[in-house]
Amino acid sequence: MNAVWPRDTVALDDENSALVIIDQTALPGEFKLLSLTALDEFVDAIQTLKVRGAPAIGVAAAMGLYLAVKAGAGLAEAKAALAASRPTAVNLFWALDRMERAAHKNPSLEALYKEAVQIRDEDIAFCRAIGAHGLTLLRGGGVLTHCNAGALAAVRYGTALAPVYIGLERGCAFKVYANETRPLLQGARLTAFELNAAGVDTTLICDNMASAVMQKGLIQAVLTGSDRVAANGDVCNKIGTSGLAVLAGYYGVPFYVCAPTSTIDLRSASGADIPIEERDGYEVTGMWYQRPMAPEGVKVFNPAFDVTPNGLVTAIVTERGVARPPYTESLTKLRRRDILE
Amino acid sequence: MNAVWPRDTVALDDENSALVIIDQTALPGEFKLLSLTALDEFVDAIQTLKVRGAPAIGVAAAMGLYLAVKAGAGLAEAKAALAASRPTAVNLFWALDRMERAAHKNPSLEALYKEAVQIRDEDIAFCRAIGAHGLTLLRGGGVLTHCNAGALAAVRYGTALAPVYIGLERGCAFKVYANETRPLLQGARLTAFELNAAGVDTTLICDNMASAVMQKGLIQAVLTGSDRVAANGDVCNKIGTSGLAVLAGYYGVPFYVCAPTSTIDLRSASGADIPIEERDGYEVTGMWYQRPMAPEGVKVFNPAFDVTPNGLVTAIVTERGVARPPYTESLTKLRRRDILE
Repeated sequence: MNAVWPRDTVALDDENSALVIIDQTALPGEFKLLSLTALDEFVDAIQTLKVRGAPAIGVAAAMGLYLAVKAGAGLAEAKAALAASRPTAVNLFWALDRMERAAHKNPSLEALYKEAVQIRDEDIAFCRAIGAHGLTLLRGGGVLTHCNAGALAAVRYGTALAPVYIGLERGCAFKVYANETRPLLQGARLTAFELNAAGVDTTLICDNMASAVMQKGLIQAVLTGSDRVAANGDVCNKIGTSGLAVLAGYYGVPFYVCAPTSTIDLRSASGADIPIEERDGYEVTGMWYQRPMAPEGVKVFNPAFDVTPNGLVTAIVTERGVARPPYTESLTKLRRRDILE
Repeated sequence: MNAVWPRDTVALDDENSALVIIDQTALPGEFKLLSLTALDEFVDAIQTLKVRGAPAIGVAAAMGLYLAVKAGAGLAEAKAALAASRPTAVNLFWALDRMERAAHKNPSLEALYKEAVQIRDEDIAFCRAIGAHGLTLLRGGGVLTHCNAGALAAVRYGTALAPVYIGLERGCAFKVYANETRPLLQGARLTAFELNAAGVDTTLICDNMASAVMQKGLIQAVLTGSDRVAANGDVCNKIGTSGLAVLAGYYGVPFYVCAPTSTIDLRSASGADIPIEERDGYEVTGMWYQRPMAPEGVKVFNPAFDVTPNGLVTAIVTERGVARPPYTESLTKLRRRDILE
């Protein structure tokens, strides 16, 4: 299926019978849409990172659950299958729990459909709000980002890149440095793709060049997304994020985490409670390469995420506003509004 | 030409008519020797990183200068051509200056030959001495290294890996974590290759995983080489080294730089005086990959080296002993022994 960018990263088709996603494993060489109809296709798409990014995974899981039940699957089984696809991003579980609550309140397909659409609509609105709040912290100039927390990681706009896109609309220009983000190169393949397409001044660097660009004074802020924020403000995000935060601290550059409140997991007291996915070593040693890039049989450690201690996080930008330390207070306050509202 | 590892990274052939090097761009897939006889081949081999690593470049340049003059080239022209091959590693200029001094003292081919052989013999002996001195600072356990400062970066043993090899001889086992070292993957291709071949417990990680392995307490020391150490102890080395040093400081892990005194450049007062080579962006965006890994036309920043401020360097291990801060004193003392001896 062909189409043009920009378009929603995750969507239902016109008949509400298929989940339409941009195949992110084919970018930037090929812009390809996938139309998925079966539960095991939804699970596979999340597992193999055809759709990735915490907010996008949440929306895909919600839409997938609706479609699976519509196709005759049991709600509990479908939910369990989707929940087992990836362990770290909490938005997955959050979206599935929300869908389940909606179904319990009103056991109808219509209710599941409406909840999935609402999760999508909120994602779009929340990313815009994150962008607006984030923009208040920035004055243009150079920003450094890691992995992809842009439009491709959500439905539109993204989280870490939302301030850049909202800035673009409002005439505030950024010079974005994108870490390539090994091993899966989401920065090179996805962030550089979408920023370039939007006309943002973008420079690709290898992950190990972040220190050099900060040392040169080229970076005024670091912006990252998150897969799960613990109650104490520890931030779990793409492997390499904690190192960036240490560098930012050393060079005196503010380190901002941009994420919807659905990423805040009050049940994880600290980063130590967050399960870190370890992926196949082949992602490091071979999968992209034309020839062997490491000796056969070498051991590989390939964690997909790491935890940034809250002390290194300058602020956490959500759709409800900016949380500052101490996070145990500020995040609980933001998250509790769910219950109070 | 076929051969087996281990063997000297850089050597003269039996007739003293060719420079025999291991083609490091073919590793780890292929172990291939190149027999080079022409000046432009020596220059190309250094430029295209067929031979790389500051000490190995120095020895290759010395042998290359001897062979070029033997083949009829003028000393000054040959020296200038070799000196223009790469800008950052000071060992290149140091070795060429030494050869020139030897020729001025005794204008004969024999004198050039003897000096080149002595530079090689010293390299082997100095790397062993660096290993022994370095070992006094370590107690086994986990060490993290960046790029390749092993046997393949010198004639034998290497600098940063010399303590690991000498430790192996003396029954002190290390668990080495090797940064893959983007963009040219010297860690994955070369360090993992030579350590694996030597039977050292080796784990390959992506550069952005260094923070996570230190956070887990897996690293008791960081060992790197250097391409040039300024008089004040600022250390120029493979891009990414400064970031590792910041991480080591943050996690309380000692950061040791291992380099022969020929790497100390008293004429560079600080890191700001060291020219940093910038290489083609294609190294980042495409050269290893089966398909485009970044959008066409994206800007790339691709410095080959960075500078680690002396304040982050725990000690500098040379063949003459271990230099500690303040480096302006300790390095000058070590380096001055050239003049005094």
